[in-house]
Amino acid sequence: MNTGLPAVTVIGLGLMGSALATALLEQGHPTTVWNRSPEKARALAERGARVAATPGEAVAAGSLVVVCVLDHDAVHGVLDPVAGSLAGKTLVNLTSNSPEQAEEAAAWAGAHGAEYLDGAIMTTPPGVGDPGRMFLYSGAPEVFETHRATLAALGDPLHLGPAPGLASLYDAALLGLMWSTMTGWLHGTALVGTEGTSATAFTPIAIRWLATVNDFLTTYASQVDAGSYPGDDATVDVQISTVGHLIHAAGERGLDNGLPELLRAVMERASAAGHGSSSYASVIEVLRNPKSPAGGANTVDTRDAGHTPGR
Amino acid sequence: MNTGLPAVTVIGLGLMGSALATALLEQGHPTTVWNRSPEKARALAERGARVAATPGEAVAAGSLVVVCVLDHDAVHGVLDPVAGSLAGKTLVNLTSNSPEQAEEAAAWAGAHGAEYLDGAIMTTPPGVGDPGRMFLYSGAPEVFETHRATLAALGDPLHLGPAPGLASLYDAALLGLMWSTMTGWLHGTALVGTEGTSATAFTPIAIRWLATVNDFLTTYASQVDAGSYPGDDATVDVQISTVGHLIHAAGERGLDNGLPELLRAVMERASAAGHGSSSYASVIEVLRNPKSPAGGANTVDTRDAGHTPGR
Repeated sequence: MNTGLPAVTVIGLGLMGSALATALLEQGHPTTVWNRSPEKARALAERGARVAATPGEAVAAGSLVVVCVLDHDAVHGVLDPVAGSLAGKTLVNLTSNSPEQAEEAAAWAGAHGAEYLDGAIMTTPPGVGDPGRMFLYSGAPEVFETHRATLAALGDPLHLGPAPGLASLYDAALLGLMWSTMTGWLHGTALVGTEGTSATAFTPIAIRWLATVNDFLTTYASQVDAGSYPGDDATVDVQISTVGHLIHAAGERGLDNGLPELLRAVMERASAAGHGSSSYASVIEVLRNPKSPAGGANTVDTRDAGHTPGR
Repeated sequence: MNTGLPAVTVIGLGLMGSALATALLEQGHPTTVWNRSPEKARALAERGARVAATPGEAVAAGSLVVVCVLDHDAVHGVLDPVAGSLAGKTLVNLTSNSPEQAEEAAAWAGAHGAEYLDGAIMTTPPGVGDPGRMFLYSGAPEVFETHRATLAALGDPLHLGPAPGLASLYDAALLGLMWSTMTGWLHGTALVGTEGTSATAFTPIAIRWLATVNDFLTTYASQVDAGSYPGDDATVDVQISTVGHLIHAAGERGLDNGLPELLRAVMERASAAGHGSSSYASVIEVLRNPKSPAGGANTVDTRDAGHTPGR
């Protein structure tokens, strides 16, 4: 089948790599796959993928080479021996890595004559191919634009900027948000569960509440950029008092309170840094500054004070 | 003006109480207000509120008496002297309280011949009157149904069940979710901020990502209710390794890592309890059980093991 669409190579056929290859095949891209253990390619071959016998054969087959393997070391383990065949290709690295590893891989690809995009997949394998799911990319904008249509087969491609490490940095930031949200939700689910509410009854209300929280985030984002945190909706000090209700209710019911106690401690540090009458957005000041005061009104950080001209 | 709508009394005119009275007036309810410091009633009087001179006069004026004051003690401080006039009325307590305080207030109201609903306001004062915002209520269902139309003037009224403490319990659970989400978002915002991304650039992507996270919550809610946590999307052990990227990236950039370190510790406890190959939903087991193992494969909790028959 010749669809006229660009030929793509997918290296690495774990759950995620297989989902990537499947999405490309479904959009009609000639797709070549390679995996260290070849049995994982069988199902893809039945869907029309060409199975390369070696990484070199795989790289040769596609103008766009997508690599999604275990980690940064595995990227080099597979590609170092075939680096000479990368010239003129575009390498799209969807392997989980750190910003520094992404920078290193970009420089390595450039040294071998290849263009490079680093990416982060903001979904689980079943969500690959859904145009509503985000795929984050960083690297040269013109390289991204050249391949945007192909990358759209995988999900909604967003370009973050030219620095190769940006996609990884966003990935880390967004996963941290995910774990925070999921753990807060699990704690709340456990709390209402002690009085007989099921998780499936609580969760639609939690999700609806998160839509309201999203509005707070949007308001607070502007405050963060302005460095000014007017507490006209709810102050840090009021929330310090309210979190006590949560800690008491959960403690009485035998739950682990590590998370709400950490949240209270962060709020108390914000208050001690002079933000008691500020909005919750002021908490970013203590997250940026691990050495900020643990208490004591006389230890106000002058940098913090300088950031809140409106107070 | 006689709109034929039920007369409502609002006791307590802080930012929230004033917003409640305003919303009732806007819907055409004859509204009587009282506040300890009467000057806060002036703006409402201009909008058509009747200003009561005493709590007793206020209670006498409405069939529905909404109280929104500082705390549980303030509720008793205002209403104890006029308890005799509550008979036949419905008291709607929107004051922040604990589940136990709500139970006490319900019993107290019942002893004085009043019906009682406890409520939690899931918005800030500017959101009061928006039919998209949730107001949570608990108490006798027939009392809620009698007043549902009136309560809809304040926001979307949801009835959680007959136990008076439920609204407070949900409130605590949902606020915990909010603080977790906001703090995770602030940490991520600080992280991408170190490389020059503004909060207003990061936040729309964070909000879009939270829509994907909502889908995870929905999937995991069913797992929590089933007591079985298949790790077919992403296992706890894989996420323990990934959170290391976040902690490293944020630590290198000088950020406070208390939150991601706590999240990793919780994941490690889940793994040590036998959930390394389970989904993140299994973390609820360690939140329910503060004494679960901090480490060591030989300390698997048999209750946990019994909860995951699919593994």
